[in-house]
Amino acid sequence: MGSAVAQCPHGITSHSTGNLGQKKLGYSSRCSKFPCQLDFARFGLLHQGSSAASSSDHSTEFGRRINAVPDMDDMFWDKVPTPLLDMVENPIHLKNLSVQELKELASEIRSELSCIMSEKPNSLKASLAVVELTIAIHHVFHAPVDKILWDVGEQTYAHKILTGRRALMRMMRQKNGLSSFTSRFESEYDSFGTGHGCNSVSAGLGMAIARDIKGKRDRVVTVISNATTLAGQVYEAMSNAGYLDSNMIVILNDSRRSLHPKIEQEPKTSITALSSTLIKIQSSKSFRKFRITKRIGRGMHELAAKFDEYARGMIGPQGSTLFEELGLYYIGPVDGHNLEDLICVLQQVSSLDSMGPVLIHVITEDNHQDAECNEKIEADNPQEGMITISYDDSVSSSVQTRTYSDCLVDSLLMEAEKHKDIVLVHAGMEMEPSFQVLQETFADRFFDVGMAEQHAVTFSAGLSRGGLRPFCIIPSTFLQRAYDQVVHDVDRQKIPVRFVITSAGLVGNSGPVYCGAFDVTFMSCLPNMIVMAPSDEDELVDMVATAAQIDDRPVCFRYPRGAIVRTDHFMHPGIPLEIGKGRVLVEGKEVALLGYGAMVQNCLKAQALLSRLGIEVTVADARFCKPLDTELLTLLCENHKFLITVEEGSIGGFASHVAQFIALNGHLDGTVKVMNIRNFHFW
Amino acid sequence: MGSAVAQCPHGITSHSTGNLGQKKLGYSSRCSKFPCQLDFARFGLLHQGSSAASSSDHSTEFGRRINAVPDMDDMFWDKVPTPLLDMVENPIHLKNLSVQELKELASEIRSELSCIMSEKPNSLKASLAVVELTIAIHHVFHAPVDKILWDVGEQTYAHKILTGRRALMRMMRQKNGLSSFTSRFESEYDSFGTGHGCNSVSAGLGMAIARDIKGKRDRVVTVISNATTLAGQVYEAMSNAGYLDSNMIVILNDSRRSLHPKIEQEPKTSITALSSTLIKIQSSKSFRKFRITKRIGRGMHELAAKFDEYARGMIGPQGSTLFEELGLYYIGPVDGHNLEDLICVLQQVSSLDSMGPVLIHVITEDNHQDAECNEKIEADNPQEGMITISYDDSVSSSVQTRTYSDCLVDSLLMEAEKHKDIVLVHAGMEMEPSFQVLQETFADRFFDVGMAEQHAVTFSAGLSRGGLRPFCIIPSTFLQRAYDQVVHDVDRQKIPVRFVITSAGLVGNSGPVYCGAFDVTFMSCLPNMIVMAPSDEDELVDMVATAAQIDDRPVCFRYPRGAIVRTDHFMHPGIPLEIGKGRVLVEGKEVALLGYGAMVQNCLKAQALLSRLGIEVTVADARFCKPLDTELLTLLCENHKFLITVEEGSIGGFASHVAQFIALNGHLDGTVKVMNIRNFHFW
Repeated sequence: MGSAVAQCPHGITSHSTGNLGQKKLGYSSRCSKFPCQLDFARFGLLHQGSSAASSSDHSTEFGRRINAVPDMDDMFWDKVPTPLLDMVENPIHLKNLSVQELKELASEIRSELSCIMSEKPNSLKASLAVVELTIAIHHVFHAPVDKILWDVGEQTYAHKILTGRRALMRMMRQKNGLSSFTSRFESEYDSFGTGHGCNSVSAGLGMAIARDIKGKRDRVVTVISNATTLAGQVYEAMSNAGYLDSNMIVILNDSRRSLHPKIEQEPKTSITALSSTLIKIQSSKSFRKFRITKRIGRGMHELAAKFDEYARGMIGPQGSTLFEELGLYYIGPVDGHNLEDLICVLQQVSSLDSMGPVLIHVITEDNHQDAECNEKIEADNPQEGMITISYDDSVSSSVQTRTYSDCLVDSLLMEAEKHKDIVLVHAGMEMEPSFQVLQETFADRFFDVGMAEQHAVTFSAGLSRGGLRPFCIIPSTFLQRAYDQVVHDVDRQKIPVRFVITSAGLVGNSGPVYCGAFDVTFMSCLPNMIVMAPSDEDELVDMVATAAQIDDRPVCFRYPRGAIVRTDHFMHPGIPLEIGKGRVLVEGKEVALLGYGAMVQNCLKAQALLSRLGIEVTVADARFCKPLDTELLTLLCENHKFLITVEEGSIGGFASHVAQFIALNGHLDGTVKVMNIRNFHFW
Repeated sequence: MGSAVAQCPHGITSHSTGNLGQKKLGYSSRCSKFPCQLDFARFGLLHQGSSAASSSDHSTEFGRRINAVPDMDDMFWDKVPTPLLDMVENPIHLKNLSVQELKELASEIRSELSCIMSEKPNSLKASLAVVELTIAIHHVFHAPVDKILWDVGEQTYAHKILTGRRALMRMMRQKNGLSSFTSRFESEYDSFGTGHGCNSVSAGLGMAIARDIKGKRDRVVTVISNATTLAGQVYEAMSNAGYLDSNMIVILNDSRRSLHPKIEQEPKTSITALSSTLIKIQSSKSFRKFRITKRIGRGMHELAAKFDEYARGMIGPQGSTLFEELGLYYIGPVDGHNLEDLICVLQQVSSLDSMGPVLIHVITEDNHQDAECNEKIEADNPQEGMITISYDDSVSSSVQTRTYSDCLVDSLLMEAEKHKDIVLVHAGMEMEPSFQVLQETFADRFFDVGMAEQHAVTFSAGLSRGGLRPFCIIPSTFLQRAYDQVVHDVDRQKIPVRFVITSAGLVGNSGPVYCGAFDVTFMSCLPNMIVMAPSDEDELVDMVATAAQIDDRPVCFRYPRGAIVRTDHFMHPGIPLEIGKGRVLVEGKEVALLGYGAMVQNCLKAQALLSRLGIEVTVADARFCKPLDTELLTLLCENHKFLITVEEGSIGGFASHVAQFIALNGHLDGTVKVMNIRNFHFW
């Protein structure tokens, strides 16, 4: 029997054996042509055989490597033929395929991905862009002995399909299903976990150095993306790689631009100046020269010459591109959809023994689909051009629902009427669609800096020192990347920056990578920071007004992902709250529930349930974690036998601040017992 | 009367009025020639005049700007004449000086700095390197209207001298004295606080954008250094500056290499590949060409041509240096000790209205001293070549004392005998001298990555995944810069990386910038991390052994700066501790002191004092913050009326974990009262 292990390291570890495939998956009828001809019976057998640990059989070895193979008995249905993909159980089966066969395989993977990912157009684009690159990597290198590392989860889907997880792809981001990131707990082919991006060069360099020290011969290949090049860690890593000069291959998957850029016509959508560098490189003479060369001949004997061409494809005679400056040998740009060229370059690079770190610049197209695949998909879906599967995705399914972020946007627009000096800085892996309104409305006052959270925070501090009123919007989990800047460039200097912490707490099927578990803990230990959380959308609006008004110290407030409480969509104008004052929502006896943030709603629900049983509990909304409402706390302690704090965060946060105050103020003299519920229990 | 405000935002704010100058400063007799001829009486007068707020007098305005001017009545003594410096009360007095006079001023500042900083050779070097640059900046730009930002505290001493803090320089890093960093609380001339380096471009860009939005004309000048170029944030900031294209001037103070590099002869001391870039730039043809140009003529009419020369001083015809790629217009390299050239370049750049961000590459020498100054100093100090002042610096004065870091080094050397796969990664602004032994002994297994903490953490995770046993050594305060990597690249993936957190807790006169206040809080909320702290050097050795042995999850331990407990210097071999087990050191009654880390020593001292008064208290050493020794806690609660936790850290740390356990386990039923002492009380 197969087993599926879904590791959610942020608190939840679940183990499901053998019943993953038995679940009816509820595909829409349009997915009847799902292209899966994989011999699942054999697949199951392989996994059973995994107890024969000493077997030298490749397939058995493969079986042992995959931790997540379900029973597939009921997984057969009508499908588009995928004869080549069906033969590929693991990357070793790519070795003997010809380039023409690999191209056909790419087409099959592309059509499979289009089906699986059709409801996630952005994920689909990113996945489709790297199909040929993934095939080329696995054709040339020998995973899992060679280490393949990725930066961005969405680019690993073809990798997952080729490394034994094809049958599980439909259960991505579902309970007990596949992670949408690589994970060392999921497969031996995932050398390192993707997550917040920009980690693969650092991790890969570590593996390369470990290999050198151990005298091994593994190759290390890391794939980074455009978004990654915004994050500082990548520069730290590349610079160190250049210095340590260990052999490793960094592939820059440059999917921002097509192979035929129309620079003049394009809007200024790029976030940094680096993108213009990429355009420069693309449009450089050597690149164009290469395109001409390619038209002349295609024989295999020309591959070596072609590689030379790529290796010389640098701007300037002294090799001083960005990457060269950082110490990497630059090769490119290479057409990321031309398997012949990709394989040629990768083979050449893999055969070089003492080359140090190499950067291969690969240009891919987000929207790349080969003609045949397009036709297939369009034929299947005459109206919509896409096959759709119903996903349990709280974000996409709630497009009609008004979210906390929508309220934030409206509230900021209102505050901007009062305070003409409001500016907005946004950072994080991607921007929520809600914020596009801000970007459009504020025009020159909205700065989306992408994956450059460190810069975002200090930049906000600079804007504040320049006399403006900055709001710095960062998801909870990504604020971790700017913690030192929050401490030293904002809090220590007592500079009024208003942190809007989005996606705080649990984030549904986005999983542990995006989970905002720690912000209350790491923000409320800072000396000057005011830390608050709204219990509903009205409070959010008031807190925006409060934050806008505070101009002598930093302040932050967190709100969760998802729908607001009320449905009438009425928005009152924000009224600044008194700092450090909570409120009692329901008066009861004996038991007091003291909620922080959105968890106040759960307290109210609990109160309603208990009320029906004749138990009257008090519900209070703390509003502030720092400064605490000590009057309210004293009152709750004096009038109740039990005080239960309720929050969505880790230890060290709201409950700790309450416990600290109560203990130091002698309320724990036996008259009241304090407990806490945190939604995160980690050990 | 003058007043001195020393703002220590991490917990301590002290205010001293009028008595700063009255303190006898205890100079050594050799400092009798301290070169101070400043008219202090006038100085004091100015400050008194500051109540006339509407006065248009420049000096009065200046008086208002400086928050820290002491009484100077007893500050006169024999001195080397500094006629020019004595006339400079604020930067406006530099405006009408000729280049020759500015050169003399540089010489005077240099000799003053040499006197003040003589016991801090590293600080002195960094200070001396930028004397001319600082003068040129203040000569050309108009602070405080124009914003001057610095990255590194040690490079701001000439800036402090020129901006009204000359008389306070001798009280740097003393109680109620000057900060060794820039601070907006100290002077209006400090636009933004330096601290952990690498923040000035981000903050400066914020100010530039704020200026643009407000329609002002201020100029923004940020000075970055070599060390800074190791940190990722700088790339994030430069890239964003390139994109936003706002006018600002970034000056790279490149003091790693002299103007006459002997590349072949020099050891490979640089940390990253970038330094080799700098060498390349320096030794480029255009730079050499400039050197020749200079010999031809020196007339002022050549200045415009000279600027052109600098602006064209880039490698390669397409301007593709690192900085150009990031979107900054590159100018340089410029001789950082040639005032004529510096002023010429800065004037030209400041007069350009719509140039976008510019990077001026300035080469300075750490050891630069003009001949005259050298002679003076040597004449004053025939034996030592330096005037010395006795500083209250715990680090430098304890060079003979054995420190925790020394013990760590010996312990790691011992463990490395047992575990041949131990590798060491170090990150932070600078490396403690103790660790040089590790660097030499481990040779190819010690990786100092400098100010690239994010990379250091993920790199360690990569080393671990590559089969090695990494210890990642980072000062507490700098670990903040890698928090997200600790969370997602180590803890979430449950990768065994051993974090050695140095300089934990208070750090003496290094002040709030290096204070390690938050690590217990932000590390112990992580799901998989084992968090411990040794109470003395023996425990440290055992914890190194414990960490070396743990290979299924991450672990961290913190130790303070400074001397160990015992003086006999005997080191027993490390014995791994049982995870999550504390110990009782002294059995007492009624009151239990539960210490965490080095604070256990304070508990023992308190116990000894109380014992003399006939009060017998229990002292326990928690050893682990996570997992907690719940048995020990239960025992302490059951047998005592008071349980007092003692630690050196912020809220959310050890005390919170104890309170959490005790509350949830019903020990707070009135039989025991829990209190905590944390050494950090922030609000």
